[in-house]
Amino acid sequence: MEDAAGPSLRERKRKRTRAVIYEAAMELFEERAYAEVTVEDICERAEIGRATFFRFYGAKGALLLEFNRRLADRVRTEVDAGAGSAPQRLRTVGAVVADAWADSSAAMRAMAFDMLNRPETPVGGETLHPELIALVAEIVAEGQRNGQLRGQQLGAQFIATMVVTVLAGCVANWFDTPDMELRAAMVHTVDLMLTGLQQS
Amino acid sequence: MEDAAGPSLRERKRKRTRAVIYEAAMELFEERAYAEVTVEDICERAEIGRATFFRFYGAKGALLLEFNRRLADRVRTEVDAGAGSAPQRLRTVGAVVADAWADSSAAMRAMAFDMLNRPETPVGGETLHPELIALVAEIVAEGQRNGQLRGQQLGAQFIATMVVTVLAGCVANWFDTPDMELRAAMVHTVDLMLTGLQQS
Repeated sequence: MEDAAGPSLRERKRKRTRAVIYEAAMELFEERAYAEVTVEDICERAEIGRATFFRFYGAKGALLLEFNRRLADRVRTEVDAGAGSAPQRLRTVGAVVADAWADSSAAMRAMAFDMLNRPETPVGGETLHPELIALVAEIVAEGQRNGQLRGQQLGAQFIATMVVTVLAGCVANWFDTPDMELRAAMVHTVDLMLTGLQQS
Repeated sequence: MEDAAGPSLRERKRKRTRAVIYEAAMELFEERAYAEVTVEDICERAEIGRATFFRFYGAKGALLLEFNRRLADRVRTEVDAGAGSAPQRLRTVGAVVADAWADSSAAMRAMAFDMLNRPETPVGGETLHPELIALVAEIVAEGQRNGQLRGQQLGAQFIATMVVTVLAGCVANWFDTPDMELRAAMVHTVDLMLTGLQQS
């Protein structure tokens, strides 16, 4: 039998290494343009080997997945703190996503823009936002149970994927349109998902 | 000055070549598994060179773009025939998309599934569905002008991208869940976009 503390220690170590790489990369992206930072530079700054980098991230652009993971943690904290109805919680999700991107560094946005426009980036919210989709699916499932949300025929997981895809689309649209006000656009986007496109 | 008939003739020729390649590929996909049909096989059946194939399609999976283009033509025909309010026309869009996929060959679905799950597939509705997004943007813009649709703050193009991404997500979900009834799921999906997620 394994030591009960074993997997947890290993998981903590993995998390720490992942964070060290992420923070080294962010430092470098602040110092110079995204395109001019190589994986080698990141490894040197983080004091790790190339193999370790690729074990955790696969590619330079995959650092976006760590941003998304941290974003999902922030969203969970805010949602848990705010309580409220399922519609209110979905509005909180949108607000935290908009805040995270509006407050993000130019380097992070350059990285995300670069990644989303590369042909090798995997398609679909499920690959890019697994943690956020899981969280939204919980909110949707509870909202459907207590009668605050519709769409039972489609299932919470499907609706969550739809919701996160639309939020991510709002952010991606903002990358392309820098003079757009992201927080306001996100409020309108979440509102439209909640109340519908049709004029009532 | 160019001959006035020139560009149009050239465009017709291009369209014909594109169709010949597409139909040759579809024939082959009916005869054997998607993975077992090579670009060489398609070129031989279509009686064209490899360079011509890549000029029109870039990759085997890009034949999906021709499917999407034909789908957009079908949608336009049905939408123009049906008239009706903007919400009704958006329901027609969903219905035609669902019909096209529900009636599609197993080969076409295998191709789309394969393409969507390849890492080199470009992200985002705008790359995969330019014609359909343009058409939906027209419907949304008119619906916003005549007061049938909301979301003016977001703009018709943004909403159209959102709508098409959600419809495409419904189809992609069905690829993964073959026992799901696509037409019913699409009706629910369009309904949710029109009337909103929040229980009124």
